[in-house]
Amino acid sequence: MSKPYETPDVSVDVVLLTLIEGHLHVALHERPKEPDAGMLALLGGYVHVDDGSEADVEGTAFRVLREKGGLRPRYLEQLRTYSGRERDPTRGFTVAISHVALVPHEELAASDSRLHLYAVDELPKLAFDHNRQVTEAVERVRNKSSYSTLPCWLLPRAFTLTQLQHTYEQIFGETVKRSTFRTRLGLKVGDVKAGEAIDEAGCIVATDEFQGGNQRPARLFRVNQLGLFKRASW
Amino acid sequence: MSKPYETPDVSVDVVLLTLIEGHLHVALHERPKEPDAGMLALLGGYVHVDDGSEADVEGTAFRVLREKGGLRPRYLEQLRTYSGRERDPTRGFTVAISHVALVPHEELAASDSRLHLYAVDELPKLAFDHNRQVTEAVERVRNKSSYSTLPCWLLPRAFTLTQLQHTYEQIFGETVKRSTFRTRLGLKVGDVKAGEAIDEAGCIVATDEFQGGNQRPARLFRVNQLGLFKRASW
Repeated sequence: MSKPYETPDVSVDVVLLTLIEGHLHVALHERPKEPDAGMLALLGGYVHVDDGSEADVEGTAFRVLREKGGLRPRYLEQLRTYSGRERDPTRGFTVAISHVALVPHEELAASDSRLHLYAVDELPKLAFDHNRQVTEAVERVRNKSSYSTLPCWLLPRAFTLTQLQHTYEQIFGETVKRSTFRTRLGLKVGDVKAGEAIDEAGCIVATDEFQGGNQRPARLFRVNQLGLFKRASW
Repeated sequence: MSKPYETPDVSVDVVLLTLIEGHLHVALHERPKEPDAGMLALLGGYVHVDDGSEADVEGTAFRVLREKGGLRPRYLEQLRTYSGRERDPTRGFTVAISHVALVPHEELAASDSRLHLYAVDELPKLAFDHNRQVTEAVERVRNKSSYSTLPCWLLPRAFTLTQLQHTYEQIFGETVKRSTFRTRLGLKVGDVKAGEAIDEAGCIVATDEFQGGNQRPARLFRVNQLGLFKRASW
């Protein structure tokens, strides 16, 4: 198809985040090709317009994660589009539609990929504008965590309330009392039954499973959807 | 330059919003060409990769607004990138990087453009996915208004606190008392001096000008920057 103007290169980048021992980590790989060959970079790839397999750029992001990470994250959202002449030393005006993906560390560890995991606060110099993309992705995750179930996507499919609390604490870098945690997210206090939600918006639901064989096994919970808490204020 | 894959068409759309008699309006034009010729559409255009005049897609947005609207809005931000095979009936896989721009109605009225202004809640069917873009832009403006000076960009450069209050009321569709308004945005009550800020973050500053020649002329204020209020809660 002839284009009225020369078109920019269009790729999709993914800031793939996970939580390891209380710290947010980002998945990186070594660029196999120039420009910036050998440098650490985010996962990314061109939009495949020809083969019809990608409906939109979200489809591109899922393909990149499957091909380069062996992963299908349950949480993916568009972050922002980065563009310009200065991003890439060789390719002129480029456009990168950046996404954020969250996966539990268990899933990442089980995949057969050769990804390198780096703590987001201790990154080396990455290729292109990837340091900036990571910074903005982490900011987005922290902001959104204060009023939504977003951190749940960093946990296994079923989790205890203690695990949930630790995840929020780790994202915000602040330890709180159990009662404070429940108040901030507007979580129900006291006994719950299987199938019952513990927040007003119905985001987090009790399962009939428990963890730990000791005297007080902890009930496991699951998240319904990316929910917005009705009364959250971290 | 040869591309490793066929690249999608890349354009920039702008949801240009203004406030007229208490209602958010969007600026539209009639598409001069196919596809969707004659239909109302957002302002938009291709990214000009060749001529070197645009540093990035924000530059494209400013050019589109200058060429098609005779405008240079003080507030412009990226909204989201819309993409896919279904957006455009003729051009295959397209990518549109959508922006939101805010202008005071006075500026829009003074420009020599042939834009049509429609209330955002009473839109006809627009070209492509432009209805969805307007909906998401208005949602973004309402969300961001609750904790920032964003609505100030819909006002003239100098404005009274009554005008400011009306603008917030119009965006949120709720009338409040003068004292409630000041409490919600954390604005200082009582007399201020020229050059003094009335919010904790220093976003809104008193000028030495006044409006109205009657017994109690109202002081004019100006906004420093896109500021986040420290204690805002609309």
